[in-house]
This record gives sequence, structure tokens and C-alpha cells, in this order.
Amino acid sequence: MKIDILTLFPEMFTGVLGTSILKKAKEKDIVEYNIVNYREFADNKHQTVDDYPYGGGAGMVLKPQPIFDAVESLKQGESKPRIILLCPQGETFNQSKAEELSQEDHLIFICGHYEGYDERIREFAVTDEVSIGDFVLTGGELGAMVMVDSIVRLLPGVLGNEDSPVLDSFSTGLLEHPHYTRPADFNGMKVPDILLSGDHRKIEEWREKESLRRTFLRRPDLLEGYQLTEKQRKWIMEWENEK
Amino acid sequence: MKIDILTLFPEMFTGVLGTSILKKAKEKDIVEYNIVNYREFADNKHQTVDDYPYGGGAGMVLKPQPIFDAVESLKQGESKPRIILLCPQGETFNQSKAEELSQEDHLIFICGHYEGYDERIREFAVTDEVSIGDFVLTGGELGAMVMVDSIVRLLPGVLGNEDSPVLDSFSTGLLEHPHYTRPADFNGMKVPDILLSGDHRKIEEWREKESLRRTFLRRPDLLEGYQLTEKQRKWIMEWENEK
Repeated sequence: MKIDILTLFPEMFTGVLGTSILKKAKEKDIVEYNIVNYREFADNKHQTVDDYPYGGGAGMVLKPQPIFDAVESLKQGESKPRIILLCPQGETFNQSKAEELSQEDHLIFICGHYEGYDERIREFAVTDEVSIGDFVLTGGELGAMVMVDSIVRLLPGVLGNEDSPVLDSFSTGLLEHPHYTRPADFNGMKVPDILLSGDHRKIEEWREKESLRRTFLRRPDLLEGYQLTEKQRKWIMEWENEK
Repeated sequence: MKIDILTLFPEMFTGVLGTSILKKAKEKDIVEYNIVNYREFADNKHQTVDDYPYGGGAGMVLKPQPIFDAVESLKQGESKPRIILLCPQGETFNQSKAEELSQEDHLIFICGHYEGYDERIREFAVTDEVSIGDFVLTGGELGAMVMVDSIVRLLPGVLGNEDSPVLDSFSTGLLEHPHYTRPADFNGMKVPDILLSGDHRKIEEWREKESLRRTFLRRPDLLEGYQLTEKQRKWIMEWENEK
């Protein structure tokens, strides 16, 4: 997979792309990162990338020209890259969007930085507008890093067995059950007896129940599309009665 | 504000904390960042921070001891820091959580990295469990960076006028209206006439309407708690009829 990132702050990416899984994926030639400063594409003498908004008002707006030209320079032959604009108005990023994008060969991310985008960028230069959540960030860079991390770890060969998560929340549809490791008694805080029992059938059932309980208590919205078994339905009735 | 970040990958933070607003906030002495590798707190010979899960299963689990001891070392006198665990099971981060945390003097973030947390960390070492969204990341580091960015930019004195966003989505309750800057015609893509008219009353109304339209089309969930004016209600009825 080829990943291009358009930004005015290339130095922000070094630590994140050069560490852990994202670094390994590159070393294994599974992914190629290319950080592009779109200021270099500005066709004016002062390399200006922003200008005042038409109609007045505070703040500056990113001009269409540098971003259009930077995107054009990255398209290769007939390929149709996904061109992703990080912005608060975009669809909210989630695991199924990560899975969808992990099927692509070429992703281009566009990051603004405390400025608005000229609407023509939105309408004509991009294929996807994405927000990572309902909070305000200084720029799109952290959003791009979050998306790259969640997408790249899904590419075949990136996660070895040694890296595999215990059990991913969201990918099963439920939150994870609690985990415990040694010591069995840490300053008086104890591991539940059942996990020390060696009874694997009971342990599995405990884990299933705790996973469901945590989802029921913390994220009932995740249960809306979830197919409950008969046993799971009974547990939930118990908890609803306890409420 | 004092911000401590507990991580096994300190090098991930350099680029992000050393750029733009987060860097300026530090230079102005408004915030102090302290990156702590909790491996240094492991009290065993090999500085191991994880171990196999009780009850069996794939993956490793972060031991309680290094994290408990690292957190204790960061508490100062009588102060009660907010101790935030980045994890998929946490409450979903949003702008009101950012505003709440921006009122604190001392935040401690705990980042795991592709492993589960021993449940005792969750129960006894932290005050908040937070997730930045419904997607799987390699570790908590990017979540911590996202939270730090959104919180620090809210601290008084951090954003100068020159940095102020055009109009933050979410902080007004609606998505932003479209922005345009020069040229008025970019390769045949034109700026709406009204923005070139100089009629400020009409421009304000156009912006209000487009802001509402974008929210109605893309994020109707944001309108649930929103108080509509009579005019806004009429616009929405028009759009509903068009559907």
C-alpha cells in the first residue's frame, strides 16, 4: 500500500511512523509512506497556501491551487487513489471504515492546520471526508496518524502472532472481558478465583459474561445490531432487574 | 497544567509535542509535558512489564506493579490528578470531555501498547477510562496525543488571534458553513455569487443556512439537542420535503 500524506508540518509524523508496527510495516515493504509539504506546490512567489475568506470573517482559508496540484502530482497512471480529507464535517471514522480502506492500494491524506478548506477542495479534489471524532483538533495530522495506524495494522503480514491483540474490542462487536496477570494478590487486590481454577469451560463462560456485562453497562449502543444467544439474553434480563 | 504521559514508546511523542500549538503552549509556560517510560519502574531484573493472562488465551497483559508505582511517583503532595487510561472500553472522548479536563491542573495519561491492562489498573489506579473512537489502534499513544492537543488548545493564552479557527465545528453545535477564498474562478470552479456581493446581511444568512444544511445532511444526530429558531425550522421542513 502506498500512503501519501499532505501536510504543512511534516516533522509531526517522524516519531509515529518510525516506531513499532508502523515502522515494521515499512521495513517489511508492506507499506510506503510519503510525506509531502504542499507549501512546495504553491505557485506564488511567497509560497502562500492560505488567504482571507470571501464574505469576510475571522480566520484564514486554505487555497485550492496548492492542494489540487499536490494531489495531481501523486496520481499514478490509471490508478484511482482514495483521497481523504481530514475535517470535522466528515463521516465519523470507525473500524469498518478502516477495514474498507485497508483494501485499497493507494491512499492520499490531506491535513489542514487550524484553517478552513476552500469548499472546492471538498467538492472536487477528494473522495472521502473523514473526522476521527466529535472534538476539535489543531490540525488534521493527528487524525491522519490515527487512520494510518488503524488501517496499516490490518494489512496482511503486518501483525505477527507476537503482536496480536488479546482480543480486539469492536472487531467482535463487544467490549473485551477483564484480563488479569500475576501476581494473584497485588497489595490485597485479588484475581477472581475462577481464573485460577483451571476449569476452562467455566473460564470461557465467565469471560463471555463479563464481556457482555461491560458492553451492557458502558456501551449499550453496541448491542443494538448484535445477535444475542438465549443465554446472553437471560444475563441481560438479570442485569436489567438489578438496575 | 502539568501533563504526564506513561508509555513504553516515548519517542513517538517528540514530533507532535514539539510542533505548532503544543510547542508554543510549552514555550509560554502554560503547560509542561513529562514523558515517562514505565518500564523503568518494573521491579524485576529483566524490567518486564507484561505477563501471560490468568485463565489462558492469546496475547499478553500489562502487570499492575510498574504502572501503579509510576503513577504514585507522579502524585505531588495533596493534589488529586486526573489519571486517564486510554482503552477501547472507555467512554468516548468528545469536546465536552476536553473542556472538562482543561479545567484540571494535572493530568496523567496511561498508554498500553497492543496488550491488555490487568483489571486492577482499571479498578484502582485510574480516575477515567477514555477511548477516542470505535476503531482499534496499536496503542494508547495516539489517543493520548489527540486528547492532549484538544485539551491544551483550550487553555487560556494558548491560541492567539492569529491561530483562532474560523469557527469550530462542535463548539457551536453545528458543522461549519463552506468557506471560499481567491480566486473567484479556479479552473471553472466558482465561488457562489452571494459571497462576492458585499451584502453582509445576506452573507450571514447564507452561512447560517449552509451550516444548518450541512449538519442536517451529514450529522442529523447533532441536531437532537439543538434549539432551532423559527427560520431554521422552516429551512429544515423545505429540505425534508425535497428528500
